[in-house]
Amino acid sequence: MARFAGVSQVTARRALEGSSLVAPATRERVLRALDVLGVPRPPAQDTDRSLLIGVVVPDLKNPVFPAFAEAISSRLNKRGLVPVLCTRTSDGVSEANYIEMLLAQNVGGIVFIGSSYADAGPVQGSALRDRGVPLVLINPADENADAVQISADDADAVHQALTHLTGMGHERIGLLVGPVGHVPSARKLAAFAAFFKARQVPSEDWMPLVGHALFSMEAGVLTAGRILRNGATAIVCGSDELALGAVRGARRQGLEVPGDVSVTGFDDSLLMGAVDPPLTTCRQPVERMADAAMEALVMQMQGQRAEPGVTPFQTQLIVRNSTGRPAHRPRS
Amino acid sequence: MARFAGVSQVTARRALEGSSLVAPATRERVLRALDVLGVPRPPAQDTDRSLLIGVVVPDLKNPVFPAFAEAISSRLNKRGLVPVLCTRTSDGVSEANYIEMLLAQNVGGIVFIGSSYADAGPVQGSALRDRGVPLVLINPADENADAVQISADDADAVHQALTHLTGMGHERIGLLVGPVGHVPSARKLAAFAAFFKARQVPSEDWMPLVGHALFSMEAGVLTAGRILRNGATAIVCGSDELALGAVRGARRQGLEVPGDVSVTGFDDSLLMGAVDPPLTTCRQPVERMADAAMEALVMQMQGQRAEPGVTPFQTQLIVRNSTGRPAHRPRS
Repeated sequence: MARFAGVSQVTARRALEGSSLVAPATRERVLRALDVLGVPRPPAQDTDRSLLIGVVVPDLKNPVFPAFAEAISSRLNKRGLVPVLCTRTSDGVSEANYIEMLLAQNVGGIVFIGSSYADAGPVQGSALRDRGVPLVLINPADENADAVQISADDADAVHQALTHLTGMGHERIGLLVGPVGHVPSARKLAAFAAFFKARQVPSEDWMPLVGHALFSMEAGVLTAGRILRNGATAIVCGSDELALGAVRGARRQGLEVPGDVSVTGFDDSLLMGAVDPPLTTCRQPVERMADAAMEALVMQMQGQRAEPGVTPFQTQLIVRNSTGRPAHRPRS
Repeated sequence: MARFAGVSQVTARRALEGSSLVAPATRERVLRALDVLGVPRPPAQDTDRSLLIGVVVPDLKNPVFPAFAEAISSRLNKRGLVPVLCTRTSDGVSEANYIEMLLAQNVGGIVFIGSSYADAGPVQGSALRDRGVPLVLINPADENADAVQISADDADAVHQALTHLTGMGHERIGLLVGPVGHVPSARKLAAFAAFFKARQVPSEDWMPLVGHALFSMEAGVLTAGRILRNGATAIVCGSDELALGAVRGARRQGLEVPGDVSVTGFDDSLLMGAVDPPLTTCRQPVERMADAAMEALVMQMQGQRAEPGVTPFQTQLIVRNSTGRPAHRPRS
């Protein structure tokens, strides 16, 4: 039968067992060979529970998360794996509950996107590790030295944005990132500090221009407002959502973007070319990061060890219209 | 034990069987009662396969789909059901493959969003119905009289947009909707025709201002370009994505929105208040539609019949800055 289907005996057996190691098209060829040979197909109930893979996102409202969720889900689908989507709800189903649910389903692995792994709490995280569930964390909020991490190169992204802004003449540049303790934000802040230290700008000058905010447009509006009142002519933001908040915060003070204030984002998520003004932002290589996440997941599912520390993925500064030369009119 | 947990015996049994009819919190209370009484918990492997629910979206790039996917997924999570996300991939995993995959997993039901059910093809659809899989279709592309449908009130949405535009003085109004054969688009076109017929505008006047396009920004740019060349001063669009395309199409002809051309969208998806110009659009009541979808799904999962024909859900015109009075300067 294997010969008839044009596959090895091992592949044929795996295909009939519903193994995740066999591509859906190959499995279909094996099943068709059974049909032709008049052998009944194995019952669907025999499929492998571990085909289910959790895809945990904080939400689908920050537009970078649907991008990662789609990239991961479509790759899982192509391998015959089954993405189980978990999103936080406003009225209280927490990440910890999802993890219980995913464990109850005996999932074959979990991909955590953004802060969702940290939000699940240390107890749940160690429950997963104790049970040996293959894990991949994309842009995690914590260090999590013991799990595979796929992260954007936050430091380089900030360096690119600052080089762009100082190249246009900005000197008083602010930084608007996520909450204190959010590791990608801490990496961005460290790169920001290093940039000015290398230029011998004293920290008293730039520290009042740094703000932490929750990842929401509203929080961005408020914190950007404070950074601007402290005299920034440009703000480097840790997400596109925060950058859109910064644009609004500037407008609330009667300032124009980019006429009076330049703003850069991070992600280059959906529609950032269509917003007003089109956003200059650091594009995360979502597709390449999803490829790496899949590779690390499948290695672990096959019982191999995936390296926890991964080289960060370089972002690309996409220059649009939210950045320009600093205004020369004086501001208070 | 049931008494100890404060639930009925039926509920306790269902909870231990992992039935989807028992809320996760209740199940947890029953399990805790077992712990207190020193009875071992049932193994996790006993959970019900039919807890898996397919959530099929054409993609997560049109921003209305993540909104529906999140609303549905979070409701499933809250009921202890497990959303399996299926998205089309650019390189070829089709809806038909997902349905095979979902059937192989013995899913307890499937929610199809947008055109995903029609795209799966009639053979797959009848396979699902033959197996009695509970189905709910949200804004389906076809009529599908035999499945539960949750649809926005397309006709009323077009009527609202046209009333808004004619109220500002527009007379030559175009309509940009999805492909021929896409039922929500056909409903919008019928309402558009009825609106002008009631005003005794001959069809020769408005027919050249109607365009069909695939649901993508690029297709919107091209088709809107033709509608504008035929003299429209406003375009009512069948999705926000098409509306963003129409704004670009107008700009390519050197026209300003809303100075020269007014544009309305449909969905009020993510960021439509942040795009340039902020889009006037008909908001779909995503949360209420998701509630209705869940109710219809759960009824079917409990073996009850859910009514296939459902009253369409009224949209709300959100007036922003992409619409204004028609320009008085002459256009060719």
